Amino acid sequence: MPDHYFDFSDLKPIERYKLLCGIVVPRPIALVTSMDRAGRVNAAPFSFFNVFSEDPAQIVLGLQHRSDGSPKDTTRNIAETGTFVVNMVDEAIVELMNACATDFPSEIGEIAALGIETESSRRVPVPRIKGAPFALECRRTVSLAFTNTRELLIGEVVAVHGRAGHVDPATFYIDDSVYRPVGRLAGSAYCRQGETFKLPRMTYEEWRKRR
Amino acid sequence: MPDHYFDFSDLKPIERYKLLCGIVVPRPIALVTSMDRAGRVNAAPFSFFNVFSEDPAQIVLGLQHRSDGSPKDTTRNIAETGTFVVNMVDEAIVELMNACATDFPSEIGEIAALGIETESSRRVPVPRIKGAPFALECRRTVSLAFTNTRELLIGEVVAVHGRAGHVDPATFYIDDSVYRPVGRLAGSAYCRQGETFKLPRMTYEEWRKRR
Repeated sequence: MPDHYFDFSDLKPIERYKLLCGIVVPRPIALVTSMDRAGRVNAAPFSFFNVFSEDPAQIVLGLQHRSDGSPKDTTRNIAETGTFVVNMVDEAIVELMNACATDFPSEIGEIAALGIETESSRRVPVPRIKGAPFALECRRTVSLAFTNTRELLIGEVVAVHGRAGHVDPATFYIDDSVYRPVGRLAGSAYCRQGETFKLPRMTYEEWRKRR
Repeated sequence: MPDHYFDFSDLKPIERYKLLCGIVVPRPIALVTSMDRAGRVNAAPFSFFNVFSEDPAQIVLGLQHRSDGSPKDTTRNIAETGTFVVNMVDEAIVELMNACATDFPSEIGEIAALGIETESSRRVPVPRIKGAPFALECRRTVSLAFTNTRELLIGEVVAVHGRAGHVDPATFYIDDSVYRPVGRLAGSAYCRQGETFKLPRMTYEEWRKRR
């Protein structure tokens, strides 16, 4: 059977979306809390998200505007306040995350509507979600608008909270039998973390000797 | 037991790296092929990588330079040629991916040294890896240098190849019992895809009725 080939200039955006979301997996999930000028706290999940550097400590979020071109609450809030929190999503809070994906009207903050417990952050005014295994306090560095509906938001991580027992503060080691992150797949699909394994990187000298 | 708190201004870069790589998981893996002016093909894995938009079809790669500030082969090649291929990594090619992470001298291309079979791409001159489940042909859109050692590379996906049986070309559906991607964790750890599940998003109306 021959391979499949898709020239992206022949595809509709929704078709490119389906392919890219199914192929580039598993994606980490950011449940982003942000706050509007009135203090209403919004929470929304994003999987067009990753860490990109530690010096500076940078994460990137892909923000998509509504179909009418107006920005979603998270986008507008970060534009207004310049700060946000990335709450990571594990198996314990995955249902809460999905509830946050509901299209609440802007005047309804997910945090209040869903009765989600929060705790204050230390270096940004936006609260974090109490049940999250990890929370990254972030401030916007730069935002790149490629079209009027797509934006890449680059943020700097200024502080991190980890749930008790989830990280060894001496070694920064995170125990994968304790931290059970959920990964994002295509459509409405998610995955639990399966079997883990280690693959130590070889040096060139080791590779030459082994050859 | 209280939560752990880390103020990032108190941490060394390597400590921030350990935390961010352990927390922001599972990360998708790009095994990037690129080509120098002499036609030598380089392959190197990156997990500071994700898809960010479908219109335009954008992916982002986090490129780190060597400790002496000189760019790695992938970075230099993309700067020179403007094109690259993201080969996705599944369980079948994860050992090949790890071999590509070996620090070969620049004059040795991983593809030739490791005897990796490639196939030609259609819209970029850089070949793709024959064994990869999916390959994304990409061209550089813009590159952002934040320091002299860290670069964010934004690329546009212009075409996609999928291994036979891995995608339904009519629906763009990818069967997760066939496609077995590997996710990146901290250190030298990786994960297989565990149990998958679906969480359909609720509309606001559905949420109100269910309440």
